[in-house]
Amino acid sequence: MNCEILSVGTELLLGEIANLDAQIISQGLSEQGIDVFYHTVVGDNPERLKKALDTARQRAGIIITTGGLGPTADDLTKETIAAAFGRRLVMDPVQQKRLHERMGARMTPNNEKQAVLPEGCTVLENDWGTAPGCAFEAQGCHVIMLPGPPRECEPMFRYRALPYLESLREGVIRSRYVKIFGMGESEMESRLSYLMNTLKNPTAAPYAKEGECLVRVTAKAADEKQALALCEPVVQEVCSVLGDVVYGVDVQSLEQVVVEGLRSRGLHVAVAESCTGGLIARRITDIPGASEVFGCGLVTYSNEMKNKLLGVSNETLAQFGAVSKETALEMARGVRRVSGADVGVGVTGIAGPGGGSAEKPVGLFYAAVSFEGGEQVIERLRRNATRERTRLYASSCALDLVRRAVLL
Amino acid sequence: MNCEILSVGTELLLGEIANLDAQIISQGLSEQGIDVFYHTVVGDNPERLKKALDTARQRAGIIITTGGLGPTADDLTKETIAAAFGRRLVMDPVQQKRLHERMGARMTPNNEKQAVLPEGCTVLENDWGTAPGCAFEAQGCHVIMLPGPPRECEPMFRYRALPYLESLREGVIRSRYVKIFGMGESEMESRLSYLMNTLKNPTAAPYAKEGECLVRVTAKAADEKQALALCEPVVQEVCSVLGDVVYGVDVQSLEQVVVEGLRSRGLHVAVAESCTGGLIARRITDIPGASEVFGCGLVTYSNEMKNKLLGVSNETLAQFGAVSKETALEMARGVRRVSGADVGVGVTGIAGPGGGSAEKPVGLFYAAVSFEGGEQVIERLRRNATRERTRLYASSCALDLVRRAVLL
Repeated sequence: MNCEILSVGTELLLGEIANLDAQIISQGLSEQGIDVFYHTVVGDNPERLKKALDTARQRAGIIITTGGLGPTADDLTKETIAAAFGRRLVMDPVQQKRLHERMGARMTPNNEKQAVLPEGCTVLENDWGTAPGCAFEAQGCHVIMLPGPPRECEPMFRYRALPYLESLREGVIRSRYVKIFGMGESEMESRLSYLMNTLKNPTAAPYAKEGECLVRVTAKAADEKQALALCEPVVQEVCSVLGDVVYGVDVQSLEQVVVEGLRSRGLHVAVAESCTGGLIARRITDIPGASEVFGCGLVTYSNEMKNKLLGVSNETLAQFGAVSKETALEMARGVRRVSGADVGVGVTGIAGPGGGSAEKPVGLFYAAVSFEGGEQVIERLRRNATRERTRLYASSCALDLVRRAVLL
Repeated sequence: MNCEILSVGTELLLGEIANLDAQIISQGLSEQGIDVFYHTVVGDNPERLKKALDTARQRAGIIITTGGLGPTADDLTKETIAAAFGRRLVMDPVQQKRLHERMGARMTPNNEKQAVLPEGCTVLENDWGTAPGCAFEAQGCHVIMLPGPPRECEPMFRYRALPYLESLREGVIRSRYVKIFGMGESEMESRLSYLMNTLKNPTAAPYAKEGECLVRVTAKAADEKQALALCEPVVQEVCSVLGDVVYGVDVQSLEQVVVEGLRSRGLHVAVAESCTGGLIARRITDIPGASEVFGCGLVTYSNEMKNKLLGVSNETLAQFGAVSKETALEMARGVRRVSGADVGVGVTGIAGPGGGSAEKPVGLFYAAVSFEGGEQVIERLRRNATRERTRLYASSCALDLVRRAVLL
């Protein structure tokens, strides 16, 4: 059974927002092995919505709509779809009560509209906003309606729509994610091709994103426990084949792994940044509770500041330059010293677009780490990368250095 | 004449990427007064692409496709569309030569396919990648094909597709953008409603985004010069009505205005951050050439680092707390002193989700600026905002403080 995602909202057609809902839902359906053949976006216009719905019904067994469930006169998804499938709309007293509790004094007569739902539908309770979703089957087609704002749509899809879809079939599909930094996608694929090409259940598939890559291991089984048990040996094998380029399984991000690893060991990190300009500090402090592990961050662009704040020697700067292994190391040592942190990180480089030379081209950077057990420094060159991508990659290299130095 | 955007790519249906192309193109068409009634996404599948194309032809006078112009066997947009409109595909010798020049030794026989174009089409040269786009009219429908990667699609749309669309009609449409920080959208709208509700050419329309808002002034005229001349008095009036909450006209961002303003005055700025965790430094150093104005950035989470690196007094920290006007001011003064910069900025607050109290709730922050002419500090509270949004808003407030302190 294939699915079409039908997103409703004039703001999408005006380009005010990107269709992130369709991306989130597509990812989730792909993991469940449900094919998506079309996305359609239509404005808050009942005639065109009706036409788009008629087209979708002819080619999809599941239609997931996003948007148009709100309280205003523009919000017409439920009305249009219920009419198209010959369903009456009725007030749901449970949802009406929930709405009143949630909105309190802000409740207006308009808002009641959100508790009006197609007769006999499965109500998808919304714990992340005011408009409930709903699902029903009619004329051989499953229709699931979700609210539009991504902060509501994402959890509504994950915790409401996916269980509904699972209830339609036998068994469950579960995925696990092996996250990798420091190995290219093609090398990873060639090392794992013997697995990827032969496995049937679970399957193993590679993905690349923003300088990182990952392997998704997906199994189908009668229940969640059995599905995860099928995945487990493959996850173990992927980790064992790839070794320490694997930074985590089922983890959010490199910075999360670093922050949690430092926290569990009671260590503090301090960061001295040049070309990354605060990005490493920002990524670490993006993680709630980072204050327990983050000593301080210093962003020093000029030689003067590198010398004055971090104690990088003027001789080093003169002899090797601000973009050098030596300067990166002295930055790492310096920030560790001034902060008293257990781990010091230093990054210096040329993010571009200007400032490059034949000897030290745009995209060149050095990252160093200094800790009780020793110190390390790496050199990397990203040719033809934008300023943004070079900075992002350099910040990831620095975080990975910390992981390798003190968390392995 | 209305337009449909038809995006081709299985990666979109798998949720690997969001459909940013459709957003970019929709924005641009909206500025040109061209209605978009539908977006459709279809995979790299010629049958379904053909069906989607047939549906689009029935309801749109302009079809803009994105994706599927590359060298691989998957890339079938040109082949499918040319067949549907009864056009032959022929090798374009100019594009073939360009490809060879661009690819050099990396050129393979597959790559030649990118120079094969529908007979008699307008070629849209691609200066940002290898696959040229094309445009033609057939059976009352204009078809424009653009490459899929957003870094190619965006300039191809702006510099190739838009001029093609302009050539189809009389006159041009031009927009100017008045950017605003520090006034809510509803207040802005009520102050400008007399203009927005009465103007016909140019028009003035409000937009809100990420804590900022803007007014778009759009005029239609015989040529660009006349269109801009029509906009000018309205832009002036908007600026005069709104006053100093306007941070720029036709500018990229607040950080760009701050960096360029400081550069033109020969001033340096240094930043001390707590809750924003390096975000202000990152935003400043996002701007190429920021090194000319950026002294340094210090990210100090703990009281100890605030005292040791910035000289915030232990008495201030004990009496008023780390999140206080007094601490923000001492951070601004301290970072100015240690860096020798002309302008010092200090930000401290509670980004959440933890760390709040009844007296100092999550979302509370202080931003201070210290400069030769004096100092200023503000208090703001964003209730119910996420950690990410609070940090972004606090960083914008700090940048705006710098603008108001030294650039007005």
